[in-house]
Amino acid sequence: MKKTFLKNKKNIQFLIIGLGLIGGSVAKRLSKNGFEVLAIDKKKSHLNHAKKSKITTGSLEKIDSTKKLFVIVALPPKILLRNFDKYLDLFHKADFVTDCTSVKGPLINIIKKNRLESKFILSHPIAGSEKSGFLNSNEDLFRDKISIISKHKGLANSTLQKCQELWFELGSKTHNLDLKLHDKIFSLTSHLPHVVAFSLISLFSKRKTSEYKKFIGGGLKDFTRIAESDPAMWENIFSLNKNNLLKDISEIEKEINKIKTFILQDDGKLEGHLKKIKKTKESLNR
Amino acid sequence: MKKTFLKNKKNIQFLIIGLGLIGGSVAKRLSKNGFEVLAIDKKKSHLNHAKKSKITTGSLEKIDSTKKLFVIVALPPKILLRNFDKYLDLFHKADFVTDCTSVKGPLINIIKKNRLESKFILSHPIAGSEKSGFLNSNEDLFRDKISIISKHKGLANSTLQKCQELWFELGSKTHNLDLKLHDKIFSLTSHLPHVVAFSLISLFSKRKTSEYKKFIGGGLKDFTRIAESDPAMWENIFSLNKNNLLKDISEIEKEINKIKTFILQDDGKLEGHLKKIKKTKESLNR
Repeated sequence: MKKTFLKNKKNIQFLIIGLGLIGGSVAKRLSKNGFEVLAIDKKKSHLNHAKKSKITTGSLEKIDSTKKLFVIVALPPKILLRNFDKYLDLFHKADFVTDCTSVKGPLINIIKKNRLESKFILSHPIAGSEKSGFLNSNEDLFRDKISIISKHKGLANSTLQKCQELWFELGSKTHNLDLKLHDKIFSLTSHLPHVVAFSLISLFSKRKTSEYKKFIGGGLKDFTRIAESDPAMWENIFSLNKNNLLKDISEIEKEINKIKTFILQDDGKLEGHLKKIKKTKESLNR
Repeated sequence: MKKTFLKNKKNIQFLIIGLGLIGGSVAKRLSKNGFEVLAIDKKKSHLNHAKKSKITTGSLEKIDSTKKLFVIVALPPKILLRNFDKYLDLFHKADFVTDCTSVKGPLINIIKKNRLESKFILSHPIAGSEKSGFLNSNEDLFRDKISIISKHKGLANSTLQKCQELWFELGSKTHNLDLKLHDKIFSLTSHLPHVVAFSLISLFSKRKTSEYKKFIGGGLKDFTRIAESDPAMWENIFSLNKNNLLKDISEIEKEINKIKTFILQDDGKLEGHLKKIKKTKESLNR
């Protein structure tokens, strides 16, 4: 990709808000690539560590108004919404702002309300991990991953270009996806599976004798990775994508109930149902 | 392990009923280890293939009444129950019989009814795969896996010893587990996760546009492996373990409903709930 906006490294300062898994990984890659990185985080220890390791040069005190400020917000979505006003001056001062969250609907409203739609673009790197926090961040987290960019009305073309250059700089491919479709798709492919995995482990916790623990390899283990994900993050996501997610929860309840009914009826329909599902699954491998 | 019953290889014939993933893998390992293996399967092509590859020496016509007959039934549990009478003479003729199924309750009843409790022992190798069938079988399927052995009243000590030697010969460790507890544990750790995974993929099949397919990596993918499992086998398992499984399905419905309620209330309780679940998950790693 031809760089236009990220060409002159000396002319740019990146400010990362939230040095967790995502923010930390962005900071590490950008500083490795020769950019100046500043950061804000409620944990002073992370800020100190990042500065000592020369990942960042400092925080707000280092902002140089003669340079262009690129802000990357890497907070859980509800925290970003709740603190939007706190960062409003920064956003207005910035040349470019993006987020990294997995729920887009509520954000676009507050962006428009604050007339930031020209420079604030929504993006979502599909590069999570069940390991959260700055200590698990790494400069290669986004390499060869897809980062979704969602355009909206009023967005400057230059903002879109900057966002594409940014994720390219971080090692990702980018993919455009409509805001509303984004929230619908991730409700089904990510948020609902997390609801189900958390539910299974919650049920398991009521019976976890040592005998039960020995035999999680027969299926349960596949679900356990994502049940270790960050609780605060997932509370945020479930809550903000509630319209899509509550619909999907009703749908999965119906699906589970369908299998329950087939088991009770015991009339041979269950096998046909499972066969159809296996075919769907196989089509995902292609 | 000191071999007693499997010491004299020339004196034993193994008969495998059902040359699928499990039966095929048993046959391959035993013949590799120098035992004579016979097989029964409704698919003549599998029998021919096994004979040509010198995995087996033939089928029922090769039974030598001067040798000891060890029968290993590797059929889905409902098929075994439905065909129990068909194999009754064989079971009575045999020196030793075991199964490989993941539901034990209904089997023990028919074993006792037919006065086979002295020589017929229930075992369950925890070595499945989403890849089913003879073509996916391999001689190392049981290596370093656990095979569960369930004792019952009336079992001869020598039968237990034979069963332990058999799974040791196949490369497994063995673990004793009460019949009823076996069915309860596997309902939760294996059968229920399969119900849930099948349900998720069934729901997904209603929406699988190409856009949805691109983003299954955020959670759904973890569930998809087991949704590819053999439908006939799983219909059998769900149906035969229905008492335990229907209870567990009700429980998971309650758990999902609990998260739904927390999302709707939006009063901060969800995060605490997810935190507790994360702790349970982490305790599984220890």
